[in-house]
Amino acid sequence: MNNNLEGKKVAILATNGFEQSELVEPKNALENAGVTAHIVSPEDKEIKGWKDDNWGDNFEVDVKLDDAKAEDYNALVLPGGVITPDLLRTDEKVLEFIRDFFRQSKPVAAICHGPWTLINAEVVEGRKMTSYHTIRKDLENAGAKWTDSEVVVDNGLVTSRNPNDLPIFYDKLIDEIRESKHEQQSISTSA
Amino acid sequence: MNNNLEGKKVAILATNGFEQSELVEPKNALENAGVTAHIVSPEDKEIKGWKDDNWGDNFEVDVKLDDAKAEDYNALVLPGGVITPDLLRTDEKVLEFIRDFFRQSKPVAAICHGPWTLINAEVVEGRKMTSYHTIRKDLENAGAKWTDSEVVVDNGLVTSRNPNDLPIFYDKLIDEIRESKHEQQSISTSA
Repeated sequence: MNNNLEGKKVAILATNGFEQSELVEPKNALENAGVTAHIVSPEDKEIKGWKDDNWGDNFEVDVKLDDAKAEDYNALVLPGGVITPDLLRTDEKVLEFIRDFFRQSKPVAAICHGPWTLINAEVVEGRKMTSYHTIRKDLENAGAKWTDSEVVVDNGLVTSRNPNDLPIFYDKLIDEIRESKHEQQSISTSA
Repeated sequence: MNNNLEGKKVAILATNGFEQSELVEPKNALENAGVTAHIVSPEDKEIKGWKDDNWGDNFEVDVKLDDAKAEDYNALVLPGGVITPDLLRTDEKVLEFIRDFFRQSKPVAAICHGPWTLINAEVVEGRKMTSYHTIRKDLENAGAKWTDSEVVVDNGLVTSRNPNDLPIFYDKLIDEIRESKHEQQSISTSA
C-alpha cells in the first residue's frame, strides 16, 4: 500500500470558509494511503468549514502558517469554497508559501475556487488547469490553459472543478506524490 | 431636491449573499433623492443578504430578471459580497442585462466584489476602476486600470472598495444619474 509514500507529508492550506468536503476527503484519502496531512492556516487554533450553503464544523489547525515551511512537505493541497481563497489570495505569506512548492518542484493540488489563490501567486501562466466554472475567466485572463475536465494533471499541478470530482482529484494527487518531483512544476522568473 | 431626478429609475441587481449594507444604503439614498430603486434578481421572490460574516435578512425581489429590461432604467447598481457575484457572473442573462446598460450609455455603479461580475460581461478593458482589494488582480488581468481610491468615476462607471466608501459611492452615482447619458460608457465591439 505505502509504496513510495512512507514518510511523506502534505500541507492542506486553508482558512475560514473552506468547502468542508474538499478538506476532509483529501485528508482522509492521504492518511489512508499512509501520508501525514497537516492543516496549515494563517489562523492560530481552528478554522470553520462551509457546508451545504452555511458555516460548517470547526477543524483544529495543525501548523500555523508562520511556523510552516514548504521544505517540510512533499505536496500542497488548496481546498475551495468561495470565502477561503478570497481571504488567502492577498496574504503575502500565503503566496510565498505556495510559490515555494513551485520553486521546489513539488506537487500542488487545487480544487473548486482553490486555484483562484494561484493567480495571485503568479504561477498559472501557461499551465493546463481546470477550476470551479465561475473563476474560469480569471484563470484564462491570468494565462492559464483552462479545460472543463474532472481533473487536469500538468507536471505536478493537479486541479479539479468541484466536490463531485474529489475521488479522482485525490487519487491523482497521490499518484503525483508517488512520482515525487516535477521539474516543469516551476515558477516564472518574473514572480 | 429632485433636480433632474424626477421619474428616474435604478435597477439594483443582486442574488443571495450580497453585502447587505451595499444594497440597503444605496437604495435608501436613491429613494431619498426621489429616484425609484428596484431590486432585480434571477431569484423569484426574495434574496438573503450577508451581514457581519453570516447570512442576514431577506429582501423582496421587485422585478425578476426575466422581466427586467435595461430600457426601463436610468442606471444599474451592483452590490458586493463575495457570494453574490460568484453566483451572477456566469449567468448569461445577467451579463446581457449588464451589457445593455453599457450599450445604452447609462451609469453603472459597482462596489466591493460587485465589479467581479463586470469581468465576465467583458466591459472593463481600459476602464479606470477600483474594487475590493482581493479582486484587484482579476480586474487588472482583464485590462482595467485599477487604483486604490474610495471612489473612481470614469464616464458613468462608478466603483468603490468596501462598505466604508458607501456615502461617496452613492453620492457619485446620483451625480452621474443627474448628468444622464455618458457616451464613453460603451461596450467594445468584441463583447
